[in-house]
Amino acid sequence: MADDALFGFLHMEIVAHVYKEQATREDIDKRVTCVSTLELMGFRVGQGLIERFTKDCPTFKDDLDIMKFLCKDLWSTIFKKQIDNLRTNHQGTYVLQDNKFALLTQFSSGKQYIEEAPKYLAFSCGLIRGALSNLGLESVVTAELSLMPSCKFQVVVQKL
Amino acid sequence: MADDALFGFLHMEIVAHVYKEQATREDIDKRVTCVSTLELMGFRVGQGLIERFTKDCPTFKDDLDIMKFLCKDLWSTIFKKQIDNLRTNHQGTYVLQDNKFALLTQFSSGKQYIEEAPKYLAFSCGLIRGALSNLGLESVVTAELSLMPSCKFQVVVQKL
Repeated sequence: MADDALFGFLHMEIVAHVYKEQATREDIDKRVTCVSTLELMGFRVGQGLIERFTKDCPTFKDDLDIMKFLCKDLWSTIFKKQIDNLRTNHQGTYVLQDNKFALLTQFSSGKQYIEEAPKYLAFSCGLIRGALSNLGLESVVTAELSLMPSCKFQVVVQKL
Repeated sequence: MADDALFGFLHMEIVAHVYKEQATREDIDKRVTCVSTLELMGFRVGQGLIERFTKDCPTFKDDLDIMKFLCKDLWSTIFKKQIDNLRTNHQGTYVLQDNKFALLTQFSSGKQYIEEAPKYLAFSCGLIRGALSNLGLESVVTAELSLMPSCKFQVVVQKL
């Protein structure tokens, strides 16, 4: 019942805290600092979760297999639903679309709060990056938002 | 599987972040500031959870009834187990004992890390205080630890 709410509330607290703390600092670009702080926190949580999560899992046969696991199993555990749509260009770029992203459902729908969105997506971008990193894929993850609460995560796998 | 791990990892990130951030500040008593920052975050999360959680609940008949709800239902949701022992002096003081507190299980047992413990208990003290506050009980909550991972929370309800 309140199970999934716990993550949502904690996430809100983290975002609020990071932004409040930065507001009292003299840094030049506060927005960039906050976003990267949140991204890094998400990264470490993603890394930790994958270690727990894949303990009893079979190995993955390719990158797409890893992405499918992330979209189904990992996403369900964290956000209580699966990714609605996964696309790839088969050259290392993946687009994960969530039509009702859990961390955005508190906002009113539409474009009203769209400028506020990056701060509520940074943690999740890091989460994806951390999870993939522990599965052997280094990547760059960005989020794109056109209409709340739908959102797209773009993953570009870095070839070594 | 990794469900309960998510809260644990997030909590660790919050604690680490709050302490790291304070370390770069010039404040006089950093330890007090960090503990109260974490306590306040817990307080707000506790308040939020109770609102969700008690939406469909019957009303409570007295303070003890509220405490039992907290020890059973709320604790199970957050920490995946119930409080092991609840005591009261019937004058507004309650002691909640958890023999294997979820946020301390990562530490090695015994007394080795006991000085580090307050920073991992502050959030949970706030959580209890916030939950009780939204149920109409103002309280002071402290934690006591003698042997990891067992711990006691003392709740003193403030009479108006």
